[in-house]
Amino acid sequence: MKNRICSLFGIQYPIIQAGMVWCSGWRLAAAVSEKGGLGIIGAGSMYPEVLREHITKLKAATDKPFAVNVPLLYPDIDKIMQIIVDEEVPIVFTSAGNPAAWTGWLKERDKTVVHVVPSVKLALKCQERGVDAVVCEGFEAGGHNGKDEITSMCLIPQVADAVTVPVIAAGGIGDGRAIAAALALGADAVQIGSRFAATAESSAHQNFKQKVVEADDTATVLTMKNVVPVRLIKNSFYDRILEAEQRCATPDEIREILGKRRAKAGIFEGDMTEGELEIGQVAGLIKDVPTAAELFDRLLEEYREATASLTQL
Amino acid sequence: MKNRICSLFGIQYPIIQAGMVWCSGWRLAAAVSEKGGLGIIGAGSMYPEVLREHITKLKAATDKPFAVNVPLLYPDIDKIMQIIVDEEVPIVFTSAGNPAAWTGWLKERDKTVVHVVPSVKLALKCQERGVDAVVCEGFEAGGHNGKDEITSMCLIPQVADAVTVPVIAAGGIGDGRAIAAALALGADAVQIGSRFAATAESSAHQNFKQKVVEADDTATVLTMKNVVPVRLIKNSFYDRILEAEQRCATPDEIREILGKRRAKAGIFEGDMTEGELEIGQVAGLIKDVPTAAELFDRLLEEYREATASLTQL
Repeated sequence: MKNRICSLFGIQYPIIQAGMVWCSGWRLAAAVSEKGGLGIIGAGSMYPEVLREHITKLKAATDKPFAVNVPLLYPDIDKIMQIIVDEEVPIVFTSAGNPAAWTGWLKERDKTVVHVVPSVKLALKCQERGVDAVVCEGFEAGGHNGKDEITSMCLIPQVADAVTVPVIAAGGIGDGRAIAAALALGADAVQIGSRFAATAESSAHQNFKQKVVEADDTATVLTMKNVVPVRLIKNSFYDRILEAEQRCATPDEIREILGKRRAKAGIFEGDMTEGELEIGQVAGLIKDVPTAAELFDRLLEEYREATASLTQL
Repeated sequence: MKNRICSLFGIQYPIIQAGMVWCSGWRLAAAVSEKGGLGIIGAGSMYPEVLREHITKLKAATDKPFAVNVPLLYPDIDKIMQIIVDEEVPIVFTSAGNPAAWTGWLKERDKTVVHVVPSVKLALKCQERGVDAVVCEGFEAGGHNGKDEITSMCLIPQVADAVTVPVIAAGGIGDGRAIAAALALGADAVQIGSRFAATAESSAHQNFKQKVVEADDTATVLTMKNVVPVRLIKNSFYDRILEAEQRCATPDEIREILGKRRAKAGIFEGDMTEGELEIGQVAGLIKDVPTAAELFDRLLEEYREATASLTQL
């Protein structure tokens, strides 16, 4: 295993399935880990005891390495972290928060720790705090995102130049061509979210998967930048947010329109008009709902094709 | 020449130097064409007779192919197009306007025509109108830009899948790693702007080149989306635009703050506080001001290194 991320995680391919709210439970993670990638359970949409159940089922389904993604703004964060230790989760991806908060605690407990960053500055901060790797997430990524709007094409090489720890590229990676692009730009591995959200094992509602398949290149937008920036598919709910933003509504007004449980309503319960349909800009490239295993094989095939056909200059 | 863009333009390498206001006159274009790429004169910042002079000097400096970039919103567009015909410019890149306006006229005069697009829809429209190739320009690109905010990582593969004409990728390409990424994503060639803006032959002011060298990953922003979207380096002028946008100023108010000649003041005359400093997000990656020839050799070297070191999966 010459690849630094494969060595770090003990996996065969440098392909990581992103932890995503309402999409990535034990079934999806198990399918990806079984194929030789790294499957991740997204804890952001799980009560602590639900997470424990998913970890237990995942361990029963595969003996390959896996991870849990924890958004650090999670209210029950102490309970979540204790479950991760109790259940012997080997790898933890933290996001949406300060890497100083939990990295030391997790490292003391022998966890491999990865933090998600949207800029060079935060990548350097993570490295100082002792993370084992960083995920650099571009502007095109789905769901919650940074405010700096740095795209994968610009972010990956700059983060790769700045840090010595391995770099995992995320945002805009929907096929094997983009895996080749990310690695050419200097990433050690890729983290793929949206493409895995539209697979058979994803726990997203069928309506949501279909909406992703129908999305074109202009279907998503990064919105609510003054509250909590999030990339989603434009729908009736978004139209109201847009109308409010265009009249300079206050952050509190935006929060009131947003309300609660909209991501669940959209992604998990299938409400396409009023739900918060979090997905990456690469949705435009997604045209089907394969099994995770079929997709994984396809990604490898596309990667081989893309790299083999590169022009000699 | 197996590469479709090399065949189309009669050049050695699929590397195109973008036409840029106040940066790309005959000196820069000649240096790039002499190296085997395609040099482009940016007509957007030239009076018609100034353009004629640049074309004349360029033809005296090289017998290699070259092009002129014409923003179709240019007020003296008829004169500009006639000069292009009179001076026997072989290749025309059009941008910022409707491809239906001039493509037929130019094709009747045996010109090779390329149009710049920010989305799949406009790429298809260009193809219908008979262009020979399209430039797909990502959200990260400098200067004037589309409203759809589609990044290069997402745009390149979708445009490459949608059209049969050759695709030139632009936006976020500042080194050989990004050339490899763009070609892996499905582009036939790359168009590089910002990186060539900071070369010795660029006609930009020394202050501007230094500002680009000092820029970090978060230095630029796509702003004035309700007037004419443009990516620039944040400065005092931008702060006033931002303040106006945050209080929902009307487009007319924004236009009044913008005023006239700010791009010239910033890029050509070196006013770093009140000028409009148009540059791409990839400025964060630019650390020096080499000659165009040195840069060209470096790009090829970096490309070979990036493609040779790609992991086998």
